[in-house]
Amino acid sequence: MPAQLLSQPNPPPDPSHIPDSILSLRVDVPKNVLSSNELDSIRRFRRAADYIAAAMIFLKSNTLVEEPIKPDDIKHRLLGHWGTCPGLVLVYAHLNAIITRTNLNSLLVVGPGHGAPAILACLWLENSLATFWPKYTRDRQGLSALIRGFSVPGGFPSHINAETPGSIHEGGELGYALSVSFGAVMDKPDLVVCCVVGDGEAESGPTATAWHAYKYIDPAESGAVLPIVHVNGFKISERTIYGCMDDKELTALFVGYGYQPRFVEELNDIDQDLASSMQWALDEIHKIQKAARSGNPIVKPRWPVLILRTPKGWSTIKSLHGEYIEGSFRSHQVPLPEAKNDPEERKMLQAWLESYKPSEVLPNGEPSEEVLSIIPKEDKLKLGQKKEAYAAYEPIDVPAWIDHGVKKGTQESCMKVVGKFLNLVTHSNPTSFRIFSPDELVSNKLDAVLEDADSGRNFQWDPASRAKGGRVIEILSEHTCQGMLQGYTLTGRTGLFPSYEAFLGIVHTMMVQYSKFVKMAHETTWRQPVGSLNYLETSTWARQEHNGFSHQNPAFIGAVLDLKPSLARVYLPPDANCFLSTVAHCLRAKDYVNLMVGSKQPTPVWLSPEEADRHCIAGASIWKFASTDDGLEPDVVLVGIGVEVTFEVIAAAALLRKLVPQLRVRVVNVTDLMILGPQGSHPHALEDTDWDALFTGDGESDGKGRRYIHFNYHGYPVELKGLLFGRQGLERVTIEGYREEGTTTTALDMMLQNHTSRYHVAAAAIRGGAKVNKKVEVDAHEMISYVMHLAQKDREYIYANDPEGTFDVPKFD
Amino acid sequence: MPAQLLSQPNPPPDPSHIPDSILSLRVDVPKNVLSSNELDSIRRFRRAADYIAAAMIFLKSNTLVEEPIKPDDIKHRLLGHWGTCPGLVLVYAHLNAIITRTNLNSLLVVGPGHGAPAILACLWLENSLATFWPKYTRDRQGLSALIRGFSVPGGFPSHINAETPGSIHEGGELGYALSVSFGAVMDKPDLVVCCVVGDGEAESGPTATAWHAYKYIDPAESGAVLPIVHVNGFKISERTIYGCMDDKELTALFVGYGYQPRFVEELNDIDQDLASSMQWALDEIHKIQKAARSGNPIVKPRWPVLILRTPKGWSTIKSLHGEYIEGSFRSHQVPLPEAKNDPEERKMLQAWLESYKPSEVLPNGEPSEEVLSIIPKEDKLKLGQKKEAYAAYEPIDVPAWIDHGVKKGTQESCMKVVGKFLNLVTHSNPTSFRIFSPDELVSNKLDAVLEDADSGRNFQWDPASRAKGGRVIEILSEHTCQGMLQGYTLTGRTGLFPSYEAFLGIVHTMMVQYSKFVKMAHETTWRQPVGSLNYLETSTWARQEHNGFSHQNPAFIGAVLDLKPSLARVYLPPDANCFLSTVAHCLRAKDYVNLMVGSKQPTPVWLSPEEADRHCIAGASIWKFASTDDGLEPDVVLVGIGVEVTFEVIAAAALLRKLVPQLRVRVVNVTDLMILGPQGSHPHALEDTDWDALFTGDGESDGKGRRYIHFNYHGYPVELKGLLFGRQGLERVTIEGYREEGTTTTALDMMLQNHTSRYHVAAAAIRGGAKVNKKVEVDAHEMISYVMHLAQKDREYIYANDPEGTFDVPKFD
Repeated sequence: MPAQLLSQPNPPPDPSHIPDSILSLRVDVPKNVLSSNELDSIRRFRRAADYIAAAMIFLKSNTLVEEPIKPDDIKHRLLGHWGTCPGLVLVYAHLNAIITRTNLNSLLVVGPGHGAPAILACLWLENSLATFWPKYTRDRQGLSALIRGFSVPGGFPSHINAETPGSIHEGGELGYALSVSFGAVMDKPDLVVCCVVGDGEAESGPTATAWHAYKYIDPAESGAVLPIVHVNGFKISERTIYGCMDDKELTALFVGYGYQPRFVEELNDIDQDLASSMQWALDEIHKIQKAARSGNPIVKPRWPVLILRTPKGWSTIKSLHGEYIEGSFRSHQVPLPEAKNDPEERKMLQAWLESYKPSEVLPNGEPSEEVLSIIPKEDKLKLGQKKEAYAAYEPIDVPAWIDHGVKKGTQESCMKVVGKFLNLVTHSNPTSFRIFSPDELVSNKLDAVLEDADSGRNFQWDPASRAKGGRVIEILSEHTCQGMLQGYTLTGRTGLFPSYEAFLGIVHTMMVQYSKFVKMAHETTWRQPVGSLNYLETSTWARQEHNGFSHQNPAFIGAVLDLKPSLARVYLPPDANCFLSTVAHCLRAKDYVNLMVGSKQPTPVWLSPEEADRHCIAGASIWKFASTDDGLEPDVVLVGIGVEVTFEVIAAAALLRKLVPQLRVRVVNVTDLMILGPQGSHPHALEDTDWDALFTGDGESDGKGRRYIHFNYHGYPVELKGLLFGRQGLERVTIEGYREEGTTTTALDMMLQNHTSRYHVAAAAIRGGAKVNKKVEVDAHEMISYVMHLAQKDREYIYANDPEGTFDVPKFD
Repeated sequence: MPAQLLSQPNPPPDPSHIPDSILSLRVDVPKNVLSSNELDSIRRFRRAADYIAAAMIFLKSNTLVEEPIKPDDIKHRLLGHWGTCPGLVLVYAHLNAIITRTNLNSLLVVGPGHGAPAILACLWLENSLATFWPKYTRDRQGLSALIRGFSVPGGFPSHINAETPGSIHEGGELGYALSVSFGAVMDKPDLVVCCVVGDGEAESGPTATAWHAYKYIDPAESGAVLPIVHVNGFKISERTIYGCMDDKELTALFVGYGYQPRFVEELNDIDQDLASSMQWALDEIHKIQKAARSGNPIVKPRWPVLILRTPKGWSTIKSLHGEYIEGSFRSHQVPLPEAKNDPEERKMLQAWLESYKPSEVLPNGEPSEEVLSIIPKEDKLKLGQKKEAYAAYEPIDVPAWIDHGVKKGTQESCMKVVGKFLNLVTHSNPTSFRIFSPDELVSNKLDAVLEDADSGRNFQWDPASRAKGGRVIEILSEHTCQGMLQGYTLTGRTGLFPSYEAFLGIVHTMMVQYSKFVKMAHETTWRQPVGSLNYLETSTWARQEHNGFSHQNPAFIGAVLDLKPSLARVYLPPDANCFLSTVAHCLRAKDYVNLMVGSKQPTPVWLSPEEADRHCIAGASIWKFASTDDGLEPDVVLVGIGVEVTFEVIAAAALLRKLVPQLRVRVVNVTDLMILGPQGSHPHALEDTDWDALFTGDGESDGKGRRYIHFNYHGYPVELKGLLFGRQGLERVTIEGYREEGTTTTALDMMLQNHTSRYHVAAAAIRGGAKVNKKVEVDAHEMISYVMHLAQKDREYIYANDPEGTFDVPKFD
């Protein structure tokens, strides 16, 4: 480990007891790629960018430090993360150099997204900023605006986000840069995504497993990721794990992950070192790709990885008040926090900023010729202006689902039917549609997509599926699936993430971060729409047969409900035709987060394809066949939202017709959850009059008195309550849903345990009906007792006999 | 790779291009540990347990296959996961043998928690099942009950859970077994947790980084984890990554993670192989521990790991309908799915079950002497009866917080004050309290806990903090923090997980799984209470200075609201004294999930310690000092829930007093969110009369007319809406909260953007007040315009001047 890293007064880490022989697996390369002109330009580019990045954190005037810095030149609040900036600038400079030299088609994904100043500085230098944000012109005025405006209200925020040209990754929550990069290169054979992974981020679980993602990249059809692990040794206030691992440990680890590691750490000659290392890495990538594309794929190719060791906050002040700053966690954010008030710190700031010689590299606030010379000449090659990052949407070709609908009155597994349809979608979109799943396609009964070799799995390390061009990635890491889906989607393609219902929550915060990116993309003038994030939840709590309580968690619905209404879409299609319609719609829809929830077991097909089409367009409708008198003038409205709970509503209606024929029942199914919220709260929210037409009004305005409404909901009741809040007359509404009760048991027992069974629905209906219909009131109490007695008898039957577990349980007349 | 693994008709994986020299890092050990008696006993134990596990999946009668299996002997639904069972039995048998031989103090944590039949079979054999579940006696009747009852309603579920004696880990969602194991051994120097990690689970991110957890284990003070990676090559329907990695790749990977890998794969001699390997591993562990405990710690010790390669579903049928079953994903769940109806499958089942010779190892349904001979004699040594797993709670000594309260009227950072208090807690509980944090203690201003060496960090790979006995683990992996916290808590100690608010959602589903475990533990008669899972969220959306939109996500509150009311606790203490009171309470409370949300910036101390004490006990109270006329007979009630939003409520009340003195305002602060839900919905939910006393009644019963209530809430409004649903008179309630708007800006601007500012509160108050107070109605419209004009002026000021960002913004009179 180079001495420069050891700025803390600590002994160097003792050597691990791994034999030295492992060190022979480090890659060595001759360091001679750059001409002296290139070398000089790179160094000047770095000085210019480092200067701008540092100035952004501190200055609001005197932005070129042409005069001594006064307290008033310094911002009120010093915000930003310096520590990672010099490393990001270094990588950017070299990526520029290699693009200029080779016309490389590249994107940069920045794991340490806190380092926005570095990236914004580089984007300004290459004039990509002004392309999208006209006020940041590449001149004195634009530079001043950039420096002044950073991290203050109205300026660029302190993290990379959708406002940052060239970015495809929200820079905040750590762990996902690598999987996003892998998703981005899929089906883009010429693209090389350079991905910087910080050594803080490297500690996260999602990153730790994403290194395996190359095992799912077919070099014949897809591009490549060039990972650069930036080991600067420290997190916010502590050493990193990678920072404490020596060469032997890191070499072994990356060899094990399947890479050839190259350490880049010659601080005295870092530019030649990095340039040669990057060239070597690209050569390796091309070698692997060429072999695959000429029909002689290398088995288990060892892809390159660069381990870049530079000091944290490299080039800032060395120490302050006797404590190390450069090369320590103290340079993570603002190295001179009291610069505004402390004359000594201000003087140090002056010296630090002047050390970059801004007048030389930014004469009169414009980049010098030498700085410009390593920036790609063509805009389309510049990292900040790649169409892949902001205008790459390829519309998906979705076959007419209605031709593949199933017959009304049969029993069909929604997933079996959807799986066949998805198989068609893969054929219609051979290079722009993929499915990412944590090894659950078969279990989720979507395996029809695996039927053909060309829509099957693509797992390079497995001899059985290697290099078959399959459209399916199955890795038992929801994080990797989600990251790949994001990268694939943001670069213009369409994906689908099927999952066990209980486990999508694993990527809850990733989904939120992504939606933040899309929300901000909407607020720019220049980012084009992309496909939606499409989630398909099945194996729900209502039918967990091989599993139990741990597989019961419908909370992802709530996660989507928290999103901006402009993005959030939640569907619970009640049968196979409705599910087909929903999938077809979601795959075509742009910029949403679409969550579809349904059953994998055969369930009744209630609606014909045409009826399903109309039902899904409406979002909800009265199901006349299950209602009394087609649902006219009801005493109670019974609402099913979800497959099994709707089945129970229909069973309840049948039961009521027999037991309490005087009760007037309307059955409603809601397939689009978003119709429910108060008028105006969501684009899909029903107008009050439409809501009243469906669920009945509150009885005051129309003089009809109160009608009762019982919701039998698939999710947590609290979500539905929150959604309905603001609709009038909620006193007449009761709601049941999943209440965290369950085990390995039958489907009906799950309903009984969670009070969503036909009996509970019927009891709720009688309870409500009794309040508005005197004929019901007469023996309501007795009827409710009887219904709950039926429930008890069913429960006893189930516990005594462990029946098949379908919904066809015996009747007790 | 042994040929037996290659049951698929595929070529073996081609060798990777890693030099063969890496193979010298595999550990070799002589295979001669077991006497022939022991060997025989182990084999018989395995046959007995494998038999029982297989029978559990299929049989409801004829449970000892004493007669030909008839269709009626077979369960209606065949549920369960056979694939992992033989491997789990193998490990259990050998752990038994080594405990019997050495009195090892051990727990078993089973990553492949789907393999409940294996573990339940072993627990029955050692008579631990009957100890806790009397009906499963170790005799013919008990065995029959176990086999019949598995995976049917009322019996054991198909996954390991809290009902499984000896377990400390919910077996369903994969990825956490390893980090839980590391948490369990902390501060238990003699404990060795054997942790089985499946090769499916190994693909998950949380597992992929948890391998680094040894870097945080001080062998002087803590026990050890013996990880056994069970590579059976397949997931549900696909090969695993580890299953496709050859010896060189796996060796390099684990050496890189810091281990000495030993491959256990001699299928013809697996028992000697595993026994010798386990003995070697324990010897290595003891060597490392002995060195550390004698004051000569080994730097970077290389801990042992066993890589156990056995075929999936080993010992089941070889093939069916021409397809491989054993050694393939087809044995993942039920190898003979049609056994009930297909005579051929039934015959194969018979042969398979008889292959274990049940009459020999389970004569008359009781384990034979030979089987019993490798089970530990003493109950306290049996894996199913370890007190650590069910009765180990050590009450925590929490100092009287009130002595450390701060002065009313000052400004204090809640976190600074709490940090000092936590420092005291660490001193009072030197071996039973730990803090787990993703490198955010300093940033969250809780760094007082790091002030003393003995309460500081404990990071063995960092020379600066190594072996100092620190109570703090900081790893940038929320998953690892959470897993360690769970393991530490479930084995009787108390932990705290401070986090940035936005990032706790990363462990949302882990927290849910844990709460499922605790819920089921409550339902047993024998599991004793444990400490609570304590979360402290700070760096909230309301004050994100160095960060921005990506750091704004209060959704973890909603995650806790979805839990069973018996577990869920959410607190938003409004000042430092309230926070102290809350922390002290939570650390002492048992069996809850406690979420505390607060600010790290200095904010007013509204209440004296004594007042805070009363306020926190009540959960909410009227803040007379901020109300008109002490809050008597209000027109409107303004409710603050959360630090900054409460500040805005108070600022609004002050503004209203000046602008609209005729408006009668009551200010309420809610510190315990759970008081809000309808009476009876939660143990803390206020009785209706108390609710009315605080927030006013709906005006009908008391004839006082409607009063308006405006909630200014820290979280997503939809959560609060869901919580309030069911309280009467919600038409008079308005709610604002975080609405997914924000960037890097000032605190007041965050309030403005999310409509939680003083101006928005004031406008809501005037709007409500105008409906009930004619004197307010007169110029309400004008006043609202004026207030919103003030908001606009503040916003302009902020955007023009980027002020400090505190709440002391200029007034515009």
